[in-house]
Amino acid sequence: MALDMNFLNINEFSNDEIKQMILLAHKFRNGKQIKFKKQMYAANLFFENSTRTHTSFEMAQRKLGIQTFNINPQTSSMKKGESLSDTIKTLQAIGMDCLVIRHKLTGWYQELSKDSNINISLVNAGDGSGQHPSQSLLDLVTIDDEFHKFAGLSIGIIGDLVHSRVARSDAEILQRLGANVYFAGPKAWYPKDFDKFGTYVTIDEIIDKLDVVMMLRVQLERLNHELVSKFTNQNYFEDYGLTKQRAAKMKKKAIIMHPAPVNRDVEIASQLVESSNSRIFRQMNNGVYARMAILTTVLNKYLEDK
Amino acid sequence: MALDMNFLNINEFSNDEIKQMILLAHKFRNGKQIKFKKQMYAANLFFENSTRTHTSFEMAQRKLGIQTFNINPQTSSMKKGESLSDTIKTLQAIGMDCLVIRHKLTGWYQELSKDSNINISLVNAGDGSGQHPSQSLLDLVTIDDEFHKFAGLSIGIIGDLVHSRVARSDAEILQRLGANVYFAGPKAWYPKDFDKFGTYVTIDEIIDKLDVVMMLRVQLERLNHELVSKFTNQNYFEDYGLTKQRAAKMKKKAIIMHPAPVNRDVEIASQLVESSNSRIFRQMNNGVYARMAILTTVLNKYLEDK
Amino acid sequence: MALDMNFLNINEFSNDEIKQMILLAHKFRNGKQIKFKKQMYAANLFFENSTRTHTSFEMAQRKLGIQTFNINPQTSSMKKGESLSDTIKTLQAIGMDCLVIRHKLTGWYQELSKDSNINISLVNAGDGSGQHPSQSLLDLVTIDDEFHKFAGLSIGIIGDLVHSRVARSDAEILQRLGANVYFAGPKAWYPKDFDKFGTYVTIDEIIDKLDVVMMLRVQLERLNHELVSKFTNQNYFEDYGLTKQRAAKMKKKAIIMHPAPVNRDVEIASQLVESSNSRIFRQMNNGVYARMAILTTVLNKYLEDK
Repeated sequence: MALDMNFLNINEFSNDEIKQMILLAHKFRNGKQIKFKKQMYAANLFFENSTRTHTSFEMAQRKLGIQTFNINPQTSSMKKGESLSDTIKTLQAIGMDCLVIRHKLTGWYQELSKDSNINISLVNAGDGSGQHPSQSLLDLVTIDDEFHKFAGLSIGIIGDLVHSRVARSDAEILQRLGANVYFAGPKAWYPKDFDKFGTYVTIDEIIDKLDVVMMLRVQLERLNHELVSKFTNQNYFEDYGLTKQRAAKMKKKAIIMHPAPVNRDVEIASQLVESSNSRIFRQMNNGVYARMAILTTVLNKYLEDK
Repeated sequence: MALDMNFLNINEFSNDEIKQMILLAHKFRNGKQIKFKKQMYAANLFFENSTRTHTSFEMAQRKLGIQTFNINPQTSSMKKGESLSDTIKTLQAIGMDCLVIRHKLTGWYQELSKDSNINISLVNAGDGSGQHPSQSLLDLVTIDDEFHKFAGLSIGIIGDLVHSRVARSDAEILQRLGANVYFAGPKAWYPKDFDKFGTYVTIDEIIDKLDVVMMLRVQLERLNHELVSKFTNQNYFEDYGLTKQRAAKMKKKAIIMHPAPVNRDVEIASQLVESSNSRIFRQMNNGVYARMAILTTVLNKYLEDK
Repeated sequence: MALDMNFLNINEFSNDEIKQMILLAHKFRNGKQIKFKKQMYAANLFFENSTRTHTSFEMAQRKLGIQTFNINPQTSSMKKGESLSDTIKTLQAIGMDCLVIRHKLTGWYQELSKDSNINISLVNAGDGSGQHPSQSLLDLVTIDDEFHKFAGLSIGIIGDLVHSRVARSDAEILQRLGANVYFAGPKAWYPKDFDKFGTYVTIDEIIDKLDVVMMLRVQLERLNHELVSKFTNQNYFEDYGLTKQRAAKMKKKAIIMHPAPVNRDVEIASQLVESSNSRIFRQMNNGVYARMAILTTVLNKYLEDK
């Protein structure tokens, strides 16, 4: 299983490779068309709930002319105890060229990447508390879309850093690409090793200096009860959230981002979600183009004129 | 959100608009082809169970060349507490042109119709105890198909009037179009304000005078236990159902309709469901053409030659 | 409902008809293209869990250019108590040309085959403890693929014979086609009337003589507790399974088959699943071509040049 035919962990890609994918996403936004040498088939396996990511991948597949299959793990043979590995090999035998997989197991792909019997492209749509690399790419596309650069930008990643599947990857890459990264949010949710990617501050210290205010979702469904009880939603919003008062201090051209779904008035004031500085729905729109870039990259060998 | 780009409440349409849509449905039945200026994308969100309506909309979309997405609310982010409004805006951002929604909340679309950030077409596939406007349209198509007019027809709507999502709309429009509307069924299920649309009678008083015998489903799954216990299925059938004895008194050219699924031998004798007077499966067939007319109407601005 | 427009029970087909379908499957593997006179529509209704069979049928439909609908019985009107017969007629009225159905009721199709109101093709994707005829066909395709004949082959069908949906059909047809059939596995799971199709032996008596070693799945999910408790997985493997020791005694050119999903190290040693003698994933691959042959056969009257 070659690295360049999969998209599993965005941190494995070089700056150049990432910039290429961002550029490709912009091209798709501007109407770029591609053609495959043969009819392509992709299946989406979401073992965890999703609207946005699942539908976005499906839209990307359809826009690329890829036939798309949705396998519902709830009604599949995985209920009979079949391993993920055997399911993947089954779908390969049936003729899939690419599988998009979200699975609660962190690093579900690590064992599989050593299996020489798997020859189709695997795309990670989220693994446990690990990565969400297509979200990371669309975040990068959205920032580049706005500022046409990363170097020198001040970017704040704010909120539930420890449970986020994108905070770590985004921080690592943004720093690599020359941005100044700041973190804010509850201290209990700040992983100490994030120090190597940026600076831990309070939201109020930094809000007026940021070009990008990237708020993270409070993943109530992932938290244990102890942590939840420490923050009522109201306290969280006042202490760490993007309130209207804080938003008023933002630079004129700064943008607001959020991976969604948003807990309105928890992470961010409801009125700000669709404000002129918000790029939250733009992110979702860019998500389709980012995923077209990902699929085109992993299926590169089937493209008509590379 | 403009009225003419949505199809939410059939009573908002004028007689002329309704006749246009009926005509369009007939044209699709006769092989009419349309072309959109760009690839169209529609998503179906069914928060309540459905085979007929869901599959019928999907068939209509495919026959029109619209790419169709099925979003299962059970495995989506709505499970994470996302509002319907945010789900709609998400699907809009991902690139949908049209959403077909069934939701248990009566009037789910009312708040959304004031939201200037929603710019895609919304189609109501059933809202709580409110409307089921695509069913109403297919009922009209089926009657017009048979009699080529509405004026002067005697139409009986019989059964569980209060829990039906189509009885009220059908009655209002049929009266507007000149038909004589009669209601029958248990008194406890007769909404007093239906008097403005027609006349409450017993099925035996009217059965030999009707051109259209429209039986309604006893929605056991929606009833509270008190009401159910008042009617055993057998009593219901004998007192209010279309038995073979009653059917024998029908006019030769009268037709039997039912929105389905039928409770055989509760609302209607099983043998009558596929009898020569029955249009029950014809209704389902017309449903596809009615929905093609609906989708074409709401997506009118994308048509190649209007 | 004509026999030749359905595919319900493979034992109803003559040797010639079966050989025709095998030949057609090979042609599809080799790139054969067919064209229908009109756009075809098929729906898949799986009342029991499936990845392999469901996805395989969907792939076959797409490769044939058939529009494919997936009806989830969990979110359909069948939840409202609609009969299978009424569901089929509904889907027919909506415009389907073919339904692929898996249902827990053995012989679900028997009543329906007498119903003159059903005019669309029905394909059995597994009925209770009855048949799984598309699996039988793909087994035959896989054997023919390898040996280009059936006459004179020694074929062992080994394992849970009584609960298998394919053992009986495969045995009957293989014998009809001239193969020597052997059965092995727990005596408690050997149906006495299988004597008419072949010879009951132990796996150790026969393993070195077989051309085809067809292992069956231990369907833990179908067994009652009493039977399960008689065999721990370890004992089952040692007494009846294809261990590495037994595999070492196989003929050089013998092949290993299994309908999957495999319980690795229960029916068969894990390392053997992807060994050079294994045709287990090849079977899944052939499944798509076998199902293309089935669909083409039942929809024969719509083919452009028969």
